[in-house]
Amino acid sequence: MTNQQHEIFYVGIDGGGTNCRARIVSKSGELIGQGLGGTANPSHGLSVVIKSIITAVNMALKQAGLSEQFYKNLVVGAGLAGLHLPRYRAMMEQWQHPFRAIYFTDDLYAATLGAHDGMDGAVAIVGTGFSALSVVNGKQKAIGGYGFLQADHCSGSWLGYQAVQAALLAHDKLAPKTLLSELLFEQLDARGYQLADKLADAKAREYGTLAPLVFRAAQQGDTVAKELIADSCDFLERIIVLLLQNNPPRISIIGGVAEQLVHYLDKDIVAKLSTPIHSPEYGAICFARQQHQVAVIS
Amino acid sequence: MTNQQHEIFYVGIDGGGTNCRARIVSKSGELIGQGLGGTANPSHGLSVVIKSIITAVNMALKQAGLSEQFYKNLVVGAGLAGLHLPRYRAMMEQWQHPFRAIYFTDDLYAATLGAHDGMDGAVAIVGTGFSALSVVNGKQKAIGGYGFLQADHCSGSWLGYQAVQAALLAHDKLAPKTLLSELLFEQLDARGYQLADKLADAKAREYGTLAPLVFRAAQQGDTVAKELIADSCDFLERIIVLLLQNNPPRISIIGGVAEQLVHYLDKDIVAKLSTPIHSPEYGAICFARQQHQVAVIS
Repeated sequence: MTNQQHEIFYVGIDGGGTNCRARIVSKSGELIGQGLGGTANPSHGLSVVIKSIITAVNMALKQAGLSEQFYKNLVVGAGLAGLHLPRYRAMMEQWQHPFRAIYFTDDLYAATLGAHDGMDGAVAIVGTGFSALSVVNGKQKAIGGYGFLQADHCSGSWLGYQAVQAALLAHDKLAPKTLLSELLFEQLDARGYQLADKLADAKAREYGTLAPLVFRAAQQGDTVAKELIADSCDFLERIIVLLLQNNPPRISIIGGVAEQLVHYLDKDIVAKLSTPIHSPEYGAICFARQQHQVAVIS
Repeated sequence: MTNQQHEIFYVGIDGGGTNCRARIVSKSGELIGQGLGGTANPSHGLSVVIKSIITAVNMALKQAGLSEQFYKNLVVGAGLAGLHLPRYRAMMEQWQHPFRAIYFTDDLYAATLGAHDGMDGAVAIVGTGFSALSVVNGKQKAIGGYGFLQADHCSGSWLGYQAVQAALLAHDKLAPKTLLSELLFEQLDARGYQLADKLADAKAREYGTLAPLVFRAAQQGDTVAKELIADSCDFLERIIVLLLQNNPPRISIIGGVAEQLVHYLDKDIVAKLSTPIHSPEYGAICFARQQHQVAVIS
């Protein structure tokens, strides 16, 4: 333990609307621990995000055979959903964190660094939320990332929300009752007002948990579910076309609903996609290293 | 003043997402005062609704030449948006109110009582939110009323929200920039992330204030705005057709965007509409009288 006392460890955090993943590496880059926490979307409030990050970091430390006494040895890079929004960045910077250093960026930049091993490229994140970024010759171009139900037509939460709309309309006989509405009524154990009541304060995360029902219904031929997925794919295809206009050497789609959406995407579009090289957590570690080097030198 | 000391006055409250209107009448039904408060939608929380109701009642009392010492003379009927939802009804019933009695119902039932002078009929409210009700031979049939962005495609807040979507997509070059997006950028003094940031916690009321921009743009020929209004009208026409299936003797459309939407509705549908006889506040007074009679007798 003695020679670890002054050693620096790098931690990469990938904080999305549903989960927060942490990965801890030695100074030489060897992976020594991983951890998982709850939502790290700042829209849930500072205390929620802190709790999720600390949970994930503690789990990773434990796996690495280290204790919380090593907080001051940790240089953390945190890529969090929504952190491109000024209000959320300001909120996170209020945190009196216990680490040696923490550097914040948005989940999208960390994901792009990870997916293309720190090199140029583009990424579309389709998880609980949606956002996209291309980084080419030092120039960044972002699309979306406006938050829940804000021009996010290919996110998991949008799909879940649309499923709720289909179910409410079906309940009022304004749309057909299909397998999708039945699956939704079943999962939420409510219909009509009771359903609306249950969702009155629901955020992206809650709606995101309903997205799998849309894919399940579509697989069984549900026309409403298939239309919703087609709408999402249409939107995602337009995003990819827009990202490609910047000529990124590589383009990847990542996130919780990526695999299932890609299955329904136009084949010509799919042919242009590259598999991500590393994880967003790895990208967050890259970011921490870069920033810490700059901070220590300057 | 002496003979007023034990007199009962009836107060009718119409509480919507934007305003809360109060009307006070003597026992014989003579209008003696009116008042206006802020939002009375329970989704804003109990204290906000209480403040809006008290503000409106105090203003009405003052106009009637009465003071707050007369609270115990007031029998209040309050028709509030969203009160058909169990959670909001339970919330309002926690209020340790200062009146002789207060009886809660939803804005929709009060509006229907008012529009058809206490007789059978149907009403669609298209204000900040949307809900509809037909009352025929003692049978009630409700449509919608699920809350903000929940199957409310003909509400003012939905129109405002759609305008924001059009503007965000235009900002990302995923949709054409039109007059509507320019009006919106101007009104909110923000674009892209800054716009999303400003609206991060926005509720129905804030989006409702953007609806007039859609009508203004449409009047000037904006195709995006005209499409949004056409979508809303299509939805509202389907609601009216559904309400008519119950054969209500009269059907009325009321609320903040009613007049402007009716302008764009199918002429055959418009021909079926009747002008409301009385206001929703009047309906709330009817409701207070009915309930208080029952309460005093039983």
